[in-house]
Amino acid sequence: MTTVHAWAATAPGAPLEPFEYELGPLGPHQVDLEVEHCGICHSDLSMLGNDWEMTEFPLVPGHEVVGIVAAIGELVTHVAAGDRVGLGWHSGYCMTCAQCLDGDHNMCATAESTIVGRAGGFADRVRAEAPSVVKLPAGVDAGSAGPLLCGGITVFNPLVQFDVSPGSRAGVIGIGGLGHMALQFLNAWGCHVTAFTSTDAKREEALGMGAHDTLSSRDPGALEAAAASLDLLISTVNVPLDWNAYLATLKPRGRLHMVGAVTEPLGIELMPMAFGQLSISASPVGSPATIAQMLDFCARHDVKPVTEHFPMSRVNDALEHLHAGKARYRVVLDRE
Amino acid sequence: MTTVHAWAATAPGAPLEPFEYELGPLGPHQVDLEVEHCGICHSDLSMLGNDWEMTEFPLVPGHEVVGIVAAIGELVTHVAAGDRVGLGWHSGYCMTCAQCLDGDHNMCATAESTIVGRAGGFADRVRAEAPSVVKLPAGVDAGSAGPLLCGGITVFNPLVQFDVSPGSRAGVIGIGGLGHMALQFLNAWGCHVTAFTSTDAKREEALGMGAHDTLSSRDPGALEAAAASLDLLISTVNVPLDWNAYLATLKPRGRLHMVGAVTEPLGIELMPMAFGQLSISASPVGSPATIAQMLDFCARHDVKPVTEHFPMSRVNDALEHLHAGKARYRVVLDRE
Repeated sequence: MTTVHAWAATAPGAPLEPFEYELGPLGPHQVDLEVEHCGICHSDLSMLGNDWEMTEFPLVPGHEVVGIVAAIGELVTHVAAGDRVGLGWHSGYCMTCAQCLDGDHNMCATAESTIVGRAGGFADRVRAEAPSVVKLPAGVDAGSAGPLLCGGITVFNPLVQFDVSPGSRAGVIGIGGLGHMALQFLNAWGCHVTAFTSTDAKREEALGMGAHDTLSSRDPGALEAAAASLDLLISTVNVPLDWNAYLATLKPRGRLHMVGAVTEPLGIELMPMAFGQLSISASPVGSPATIAQMLDFCARHDVKPVTEHFPMSRVNDALEHLHAGKARYRVVLDRE
Repeated sequence: MTTVHAWAATAPGAPLEPFEYELGPLGPHQVDLEVEHCGICHSDLSMLGNDWEMTEFPLVPGHEVVGIVAAIGELVTHVAAGDRVGLGWHSGYCMTCAQCLDGDHNMCATAESTIVGRAGGFADRVRAEAPSVVKLPAGVDAGSAGPLLCGGITVFNPLVQFDVSPGSRAGVIGIGGLGHMALQFLNAWGCHVTAFTSTDAKREEALGMGAHDTLSSRDPGALEAAAASLDLLISTVNVPLDWNAYLATLKPRGRLHMVGAVTEPLGIELMPMAFGQLSISASPVGSPATIAQMLDFCARHDVKPVTEHFPMSRVNDALEHLHAGKARYRVVLDRE
């Protein structure tokens, strides 16, 4: 038996407190990681608040884990003890449904989520099913890699899924935790990148992170001036916007892809979509193969989340920092 | 000068009356057709009612024309006098915008529409710019081909645009003028085809036109039972439905493609789209190259609109028949 020293909340909204639990015997397909770093994602906040009504308390959050393989089950072959690996939103897949067999593990209907009904990475150790554990290639900075494993893959995945051409002109709505990585990915992918942001202060930062130009989403004329100019728009925001006005910035064949968790119904006007053969789509994180492709791409192009670091013992300060909207751009907890 | 003997409405809702107009000199890139048959499309009714506020009266409707090339301009090379050809919603393209140069003429922002600001095919003769005129291959029945040129291409085009796999399971919402052609196309394309229809009477007909099974859209349990079963849904209806319930019938990676003119905003729930990486899209008719591909496909697979015929002199009866919802499934006017 291994005792895990973790941080957990015992009720919605409660602060995290030290929490210990025992790991049972390691299954043949399981891997235990010694946590080095763990990013904090907005979905950790949502789970802590039980916003999605699927939280089991005590909750150990954390699903952007970078760590060292401490132990592997007897049937695990693709990683070995001592390897540095990543673990994201999913900690296991059924491996036999149509999606798993097709390489779409991230859409497995019975996928296990790292922090749903089990304990995540705000801890010294975390367990996962082997297929969800991906090796970190040399050249990826371990300290800042955590946020790639949930936030990063969420914006990288659509480039792979929709076979985005480097010849495309792309826009990113919302330059925050997800959007600042989308700018870097799209730039390295070869696209022309426009950052839509309502914050003047972020303009220079967006240009520094890969945007070729920026567009103020508070200027009513700016969207109109951008009519029919983009092949792809990735929206990272979780608030309702005037989606029809954004659709109007797409060229024929254009796509509005939404990765922010917007809960209000989208009031989409169909006829302009028809004239331009436009698509609207959405997607969830990414498969292990796509995560591996992303990490390889990050190493080759030096794509890195911009991170702020807190020691894990200051997890409550770190959560408050993110909750207050102050994160620039992702928060990472470091094991002491 | 050539005098055209046509049928025109002089005001919204007015019956069609005999109407003559003169064709000026034939331009170097123009083609004159002697009309043999002309389908009637719902958009002819919409234009007659000025529903889209872009009708110029007197209006000569008709944009599903099958005819014989009577004269060609001096620079026209792809058709010759005597050829049997088709002419659909578009009668000309700019030929130099990004869409035209890319083969997406149907999305040319300045495309000329056969019955917008000019006279259509309810006539003995109609003129068009050469690129919009497509040869009818041997093996396509001239009498029933008219409806392919607007209605048919509208449902065939998405199969080409989205590279639909013959291995797909597809559904068609609305088994009418468009839907009955969609069933035939999808069956011949190799897909499993489910017809969604609210009319018991259409069940047997749908099975006869290529559906492998049918699903009553009036049975609340039937949609639920079909959860996550389809790769593609083509909606041909122009009324608002519970789109989220239809989206739930899609497998991961599925697409809801809408070709009916729904004017009410679509109140789409994003989160189920995200979990399944779903897409919603729409499209307008098709390019000349795709029309040619469709006609070739129809000849090879014996795909044919199911048509009812009226002599052109009974055009008002024919329009009333369509307006009353009695068409099974497309109405064609024949020149006497």
